[in-house]
Formats: sequence, C-alpha cells, structure tokens
Amino acid sequence: MAEKYRQNEPIEDVQNRPDPRGIAINKVGVRNLRYPIVILDRAHEKQATVAKVSLSVNLPHHFKGAHMSRFVEILNEHHGDMTMWSLPDILHKLKERLDAESAHVELSFPYFMERSAPVSGAVALMDYQCAFIGETENGADEFILRVTVPVTSLCPCSKEISDYGAHNQRGEVTMEVKGEKAGRPEMIWIEELVEIAEQSASAPVYALLKRPDERHVTMQAYDNPVFVEDMVRNVAQRLMQDPRAARFKVTAENFESIHNHNAFASVEWQREKQ
Amino acid sequence: MAEKYRQNEPIEDVQNRPDPRGIAINKVGVRNLRYPIVILDRAHEKQATVAKVSLSVNLPHHFKGAHMSRFVEILNEHHGDMTMWSLPDILHKLKERLDAESAHVELSFPYFMERSAPVSGAVALMDYQCAFIGETENGADEFILRVTVPVTSLCPCSKEISDYGAHNQRGEVTMEVKGEKAGRPEMIWIEELVEIAEQSASAPVYALLKRPDERHVTMQAYDNPVFVEDMVRNVAQRLMQDPRAARFKVTAENFESIHNHNAFASVEWQREKQ
Amino acid sequence: MAEKYRQNEPIEDVQNRPDPRGIAINKVGVRNLRYPIVILDRAHEKQATVAKVSLSVNLPHHFKGAHMSRFVEILNEHHGDMTMWSLPDILHKLKERLDAESAHVELSFPYFMERSAPVSGAVALMDYQCAFIGETENGADEFILRVTVPVTSLCPCSKEISDYGAHNQRGEVTMEVKGEKAGRPEMIWIEELVEIAEQSASAPVYALLKRPDERHVTMQAYDNPVFVEDMVRNVAQRLMQDPRAARFKVTAENFESIHNHNAFASVEWQREKQ
Amino acid sequence: MAEKYRQNEPIEDVQNRPDPRGIAINKVGVRNLRYPIVILDRAHEKQATVAKVSLSVNLPHHFKGAHMSRFVEILNEHHGDMTMWSLPDILHKLKERLDAESAHVELSFPYFMERSAPVSGAVALMDYQCAFIGETENGADEFILRVTVPVTSLCPCSKEISDYGAHNQRGEVTMEVKGEKAGRPEMIWIEELVEIAEQSASAPVYALLKRPDERHVTMQAYDNPVFVEDMVRNVAQRLMQDPRAARFKVTAENFESIHNHNAFASVEWQREKQ
Repeated sequence: MAEKYRQNEPIEDVQNRPDPRGIAINKVGVRNLRYPIVILDRAHEKQATVAKVSLSVNLPHHFKGAHMSRFVEILNEHHGDMTMWSLPDILHKLKERLDAESAHVELSFPYFMERSAPVSGAVALMDYQCAFIGETENGADEFILRVTVPVTSLCPCSKEISDYGAHNQRGEVTMEVKGEKAGRPEMIWIEELVEIAEQSASAPVYALLKRPDERHVTMQAYDNPVFVEDMVRNVAQRLMQDPRAARFKVTAENFESIHNHNAFASVEWQREKQ
Repeated sequence: MAEKYRQNEPIEDVQNRPDPRGIAINKVGVRNLRYPIVILDRAHEKQATVAKVSLSVNLPHHFKGAHMSRFVEILNEHHGDMTMWSLPDILHKLKERLDAESAHVELSFPYFMERSAPVSGAVALMDYQCAFIGETENGADEFILRVTVPVTSLCPCSKEISDYGAHNQRGEVTMEVKGEKAGRPEMIWIEELVEIAEQSASAPVYALLKRPDERHVTMQAYDNPVFVEDMVRNVAQRLMQDPRAARFKVTAENFESIHNHNAFASVEWQREKQ
Repeated sequence: MAEKYRQNEPIEDVQNRPDPRGIAINKVGVRNLRYPIVILDRAHEKQATVAKVSLSVNLPHHFKGAHMSRFVEILNEHHGDMTMWSLPDILHKLKERLDAESAHVELSFPYFMERSAPVSGAVALMDYQCAFIGETENGADEFILRVTVPVTSLCPCSKEISDYGAHNQRGEVTMEVKGEKAGRPEMIWIEELVEIAEQSASAPVYALLKRPDERHVTMQAYDNPVFVEDMVRNVAQRLMQDPRAARFKVTAENFESIHNHNAFASVEWQREKQ
Repeated sequence: MAEKYRQNEPIEDVQNRPDPRGIAINKVGVRNLRYPIVILDRAHEKQATVAKVSLSVNLPHHFKGAHMSRFVEILNEHHGDMTMWSLPDILHKLKERLDAESAHVELSFPYFMERSAPVSGAVALMDYQCAFIGETENGADEFILRVTVPVTSLCPCSKEISDYGAHNQRGEVTMEVKGEKAGRPEMIWIEELVEIAEQSASAPVYALLKRPDERHVTMQAYDNPVFVEDMVRNVAQRLMQDPRAARFKVTAENFESIHNHNAFASVEWQREKQ
C-alpha cells in the first residue's frame, strides 16, 4: 500500500479544517484522566494526592475540531503544582493554545487530614473528597472549591418519638463555594469547610476511635439530632456569615439506616451585590 | 424506662415544627430508590423495566422538615404506569401532599429495543440508558427526555494520516431534550433519539452481529469518520430541525482506544421564542 | 480497493483456526450485557426485572477463538424465562454450541418484594440485589443463589458503654448458597434468604415507614444490637440447619455511621459428605 | 440518666466476651478505607499515591468480636512505606495484635509511569491500577501483585473479513502474579508487568500522542490484530517463562467498539513443584 507521508513531510491538520455546519460547541476536551497532584495543605504546606481531571474549552463554529493533545501537554507542564493560584494560569494557557474564548478545569481528589480522636487523642488520617473547579469566560475567572465531608446524623424524629435509641447513619455534606473578594478569587481552606460541615451535623466521623471515643461520639450524636434539612441550613447559615462566600450550593445526603434509599436536601444561595 | 406514647396516642410531628433559621430549602427528598416501572414502547405498547428514582420538593423557610414517607407513598400509588403523561400527575401530587411550590422527579432506567443486524437480519435486544425528568415550578410543567446511545466512532484524523486502518472505539451520545408544543409538554419517542444519535456517529452498535454484519459495520465506520465534535454537531443539526425540540443539551464521549482517558464535547441550545 | 468477498461467498472463520501456543483458556465469553428477564416470584408467580449478564465457556488449547455471537444468540432464545430450572438448559446449550467442556452463567438483578411496615401495615416495594450463578463442569451442574439484603445494625459495644444512644447504620448481608438435594440442584427461594438475613440483624429496613413504624424499628434495633461478626454467625447458624444448603458464603458489611470506612466479616462453610 | 462510667473507670471490652455459637469467622476487618501511601518506583525510587485499603484477620469461634480500631492503628504506624517488603511486617502485626492465625491485606492504588510517545518522544504520565495483596496463613506468607494495563486491541476477524478498516477498542489486561523464589516472596516490578501486557496487545495506549504518534499507533494496531483470547495467551506464555511467577491469573477485557457489552477471557496457571 502506498505510504501517505514521506519522512519529515508535514502531516495534515484535520482538526484545523473549516466546518460548514455553523454550530458552536460549548465544551470540548478530555475527561476521566488520572493525575498525581500536589496541593496546599494548611497543616503541612504541601500534600501529594491523585486527581481525576477534566479540561475543556469552547470551540467556535468555524473550526472542525479541538487539538486534544494540547490539553494533556498543558497538564504535564503544571503537574507539580495545583492550587487555587495556579488554576488561572492553566485556564489562560488553555484559552490561548486552543484558540478559545472560554476554558474550564475540574480536579477531583481525596484530601487527607490528621484528626485526633475526641477523648483518647489517638491520631489518624481522615479522607475528604474535594474538587477545584475553575472557569474563565468573558474575561472573568471563577474559582469554586467543592468539599464532601462524611458525618454522623441522628434523626430528631426517631429520637423524639422513641422511648430509647434513635436511628443514625453516615451522611455526607457537600459544599461548593465560590470564594471572592473585591471581584477576584479569594482563598477558602478545605479545612475550614470540613469544620463547618462537622459543626452542622450530629457528630464528626473519624478513622480511628478507641472505646472512650466511641462512647463520646455516640452521646454527642444523641445530643445533637439533625435532619438533612437541618444540616444544609446550619451550613448555609455559617457560610452566609463569611464575607468570602459569594455563592454556594450545599447538599446533605443520609444513607438512611432504616431505609434502602437516601434522604437529601440542598440549598443554593448567592450574595447580593453591594 | 417510661414509655413516651400510650397505645393510639398521637405521635408528635417533629417535621411540622416551625424553623427559626429563615432559610428556604431548594430541594428536599429521596434518591437512589430502585423501582420497577412500566413505560410506553413504540413497538410493543408497554415495556417493564427498573428505574432509579429521585423525588423532591422545595421547603419553605418556616417548616423544619419534609415528610419523607409521602414521597414513597406517591410513588407506590403510581408504579404501574410511568410515562410522560403520568409524570405531571405525580408532580402535582408531590406539590400538594408536601405543601410545596415546586416538585422534581427523575426516573433513570434501561430501555430495550429489538434491533436487526444489518446484513444477516439476526435480531437481539439492545439496551439504552434513559431518563424522564419532570419539574413543576411557578405553575409551569416541564418534561425532559434523556437518552444515552452507545455508538461506534472512528477518528477522521487517524484515518486521514495513516496509510491503513484508523482508531475507533465505543462512544456514547447523550441527549437531553425538552419537548414542547404551544407551551405544553410534547412527546418525543426514545426510539427517535436513538435513531438520531446512530445517524450522527460512524456506525450503530449492536448486541448481536454475525460475520457478514461485522464486515458491514467495520466498513460503514471506516466510511463515516467522526470526531466527538462532529457527533454533537450532527445531532444538534437534526434536533434544531425538529419543531418539538424547545431546548436540548447533547454530549458525546469517546472511550478512546489509543488513550486511557475520554474525549468529550457538548452543545447546549434553546429555540428562540417566536 | 479490491473486495475480499463476492456476494454469497463464505466468509472466513478466523476463530476456527488452529492455535499453536498450546495454552487452554479457562473462561472466554461476554459480560456487562444488560437484559430484561422474567423470574419466579413466590408471591406473584412471575416478576419482570433487568439483569447484568455474564456468559462464558472454556476454550481448548487448539482453538484460536470462541464464537462470541453465539452467547448472545442463546441468551435471546431464552429471555422470556430465567429460573433455576432454565439455567441448566442454557449451560448445556453453551457447552454444545461452543464446543466446550465447561460453561458458566451469571445473572445479577434487583428483585422486588412487597413489604408491610411493622405497625401501620403500609405496603411498599423493597429491592434486593440478587444473582443466579450456574456452572457445568465435568458433567456436574451447580447452581448458586446470591442475595444481598440491606439491614439495620446497631453496635453492641456502643450501646453497652454509652449512657444513652448507640451508633447504628445501614448494613448489607450477602449470602451465596448452593442448594442441593441428593446430588442435584435444589430450589431455595430468594424470600427465604431475605428472611434469614433480617432475623440475623438488628432490624429490617423498609421502603416506607410511617411515624409509629419508625418508633418501632428504632426500639427494635436498640433491643437487638449486633456486630458484623454476630450477623454472619446468626446467618451461618440458620443456614447450617437447612439441609438444602450444601455450601455457603455469608458476608456482612456495615457502612459505619461513626467512620468513613466499612466493617465486614465473612464465613465460608461446606456441609460434610454423608 | 445515670452515667455508666466514672472518670478513668475502665470501659467494658464487649468484643472480648466469649461467644457461644461455636462458629469461626474466616475474615473480619475493615475495607473501603482510603490512605496515602508511598511505594517503590523503578525509575524514581519512590512514588506517592492513594490506596483503597482492606485489612482483615480470622476470628476464632470463642471470641465475640475483633477490635476493629487496631487495624487502623497498624495502618497508621506504617503509612510512610508500603512495599512488598513492609507487607509481611503489617501482616504479622495484624496477627499478633488481633490474636489471629491468619491475616490479609489488600492495597489498591493508581501507579504512574512517564511514557514517551513512539515518534515525537513527547513525555506524559500514564496511570495503571495496581494492587498489593498479602496473606499470612499457617505460618506461610504470600504476596500477589495485581496490575491492570489499558491497551488497544484490534479484531483479527474484522480485519480479515473486511475490505478495509478493522474495529478496535480500548481493552484492559489484568495480571495477578504470585512472585516466589525458593519458597519465599520474590519481587516483580509493576513496570515489568506493564511491558508484558503491552507487548501482548495490538498497541500500547498513551496519555499524550501528537499526530505522527497517532499515525504510528494506528498502523501498529492494524499490523498486530489480537482477540482477547490472544492477549491472555500471549501474556501467559511470557509469564510461564519467568521463573519468579509461581502462580498467575490473567484476564483480558475489550470494551468492544461494535457492541454495548464486553468480551473477556482468562487463564489461571500454577507452576508445578520441582
């Protein structure tokens, strides 16, 4: 069979061909890509973890395709450093090298924090699923931090109506918060959102509890019953009081111990412009 | 221990208590509930399948909690019949029995269609993941049909630049379409969206192919190379021409055979009011 | 380009070629195939549901490949009827049509049962993930029923050491049981295994509970604390007493409400030959 | 309510109570625990990644329960170092501190390797899902390395019977290998298994390919067609020739581009004692 290209001959750029359909594409890119990243950690400066990555740009109607390999090239140039502060740089490179007007990045990763058990003080690592979501569009950058915090929730109704006991379960509180100050992205620590979620539930969950700790959290949960509705309201109240929170969505979900389905609630909120 | 309730004494309604926090909840409900449903089928009138169900309502700021068991009660009253035509009824019952202003239903289920192989005519069932999404808010009902169609996609760039062969892979085209006619929900068949997606890809995928069929689809794919960008544009073009499509989002994703990550593209579109 | 085959000319059977490597293959087949099935139901005779299907055979060392389309053909011939009684027939067809010595079938599906709430009697459907696993090898057929039952488990340690309350959670009990009588497969109902698992836990879980029911199951769980170790032993004890259980594996897993990880235990057992 | 325990009073050890049921438990432990680990890397000495962890021991019939918190304590003592060489130490600590006769550890994690594209030499990280599985029982330690390698597979039948083109897809080759030398665990590098799998498929997959690379792998795959049966046999042949491989299971699975289900094959093999 004849060879299409002789050595060193340029290879045709099919993606660069014009497209006749006249339809602009909102997002084109790569996703489900795993990548080791290093992120900022309030206690230890830096933390190594592994992210699922999604990168995309818009595609104007006159181009046939995006050059997908450039997404991975840009990721490789940056992998030593993924923070709120490097995200804008990645977004702008995506825009520039892919000839786009908007760009979108999402990094989802487990984040680890050393936690001390409440009575014994025994220390162990707890994991929290987090995400950095960055977007640049119409010249404005936006940065959203998402943190999912596992918690214990104990049902106020079950406690109230039963002579003893109360059903409780593992739940999850997910917060997506846009941090902003004077119109620019503003840092919120993962650690801060973990704290807010735990204070809004019946009790925190831990990786390691000795017997005196188990006794403590059992009673702590019984003393602080909450519905999913209470958890989202408690978190919302706290976030509304934080001037850095320009916009948020908070969701609570209970893996109900008395059902085979989950209960959930969510609140979305945006700070009024001043 | 003293009993809290004597026989037949009314049990306190904790959810009904007033809430002092002044925070309205956008959505509260149940999710991840599995349920057998019967849906309309263009070829056989009815088809039995199994859905993952999510049901929710809004909760005004003055109520402490929603009565979660009512969601499941309403689902049980309806389970024999889940169509675009019964969804409004479920939405209105949710609103009414939960004292809410808005309600949301999502049923996600596999749908089966008998497909004939292109040469041998051998018949087998193919599965398509679908969803009915219904919402009622401010007195208006909305109905969205989501269908995910597995397809073959063959890379135009790989074909163009290689002396022989071309990488191809399983891809998925997902369409979310709001059907509307004269301001009211309008029926679009699952079968219609499956057809649109398959015509927009390199070739359909089948559950059963004999050798002459395999030969056929191999060459069909090679003759019709498409990027993810092409697939979303092809689908968008077809949907724009259908007056029932008031709004849609179409996404294509390729499980790239030469990468360990996926390529994707999406287009969102809304018909201008006339 | 020259056409390889003229109309009606036989197409070469590549799979049928001899293989020189001399390596026999234990299992070759298809998996992750979704299929609607109808199964026996103790209360209603028949129940329609949707299965994930895996079908395989062994491949002697001298064949290059298996004819994969035959798996789907055999499935299509049978889809109206999937029970313990039709499984041997499918296994024997697989062996015969694929020239194999052993065959393996696995159908995994949700199964629904109407359950009445313990006080109000309110009726709703509960789902249980089940599987039929059939194997024929060396002339012997084997049939295994797998049932996973969601339950409530309440921690005996937490109850014992706390002044009030006790952590509890959703757990899952999974039983895989080989039913046999006089050396031949013997029927065990899904309903029987559901009952055994629920009696072995702190309390059953339900799809629908009204307030008096919630009060009941809260106290029932508190009165019957169990570890995962207790649940597997309770189930094992019951199964050992059932002469149809020739072999079983039982696993219990708790989605711990005080941790972000799960606790689990498992027991495997085989009846001694008599 | 009366307090059960005064300050500093010992809390009852419920797990340590005797159990009257006389049923030994094969495995009891924790799973689905996420943990950051550091593992050996042939190119860079050490690599930080994140593992899903499962730890278990047997429980003799006379104990009521295992002390679950000890699993997490032992993991915390070791988290800086997880290699084939530290696994025996963890296993022995589990046995000792939990008064058990057998112990089992499974760490599943993504592993990253820098790969150069075949023509351009462009470098990017590829991820491979791996696991360390260790077991100690009856005084003998066993160590199994599991590696899953994504590959391209191109169908020999489709190539043979079609005038042009050939369907191909992403596939996965999973190898579980017990390394042994003179009756003791013996090291096999993840990198070695990756190489074996890639040589056994139609072509490797990469994270980053420029156009000349895409041209290369497209033709490489077309020149090396393989069924899932071929892939498992090719891997098996290579492993049989490696004297360190005392036992293995190899599975290949294709995400078929012409079907919505997967094709798979597996071979299990054990070296005869010499």
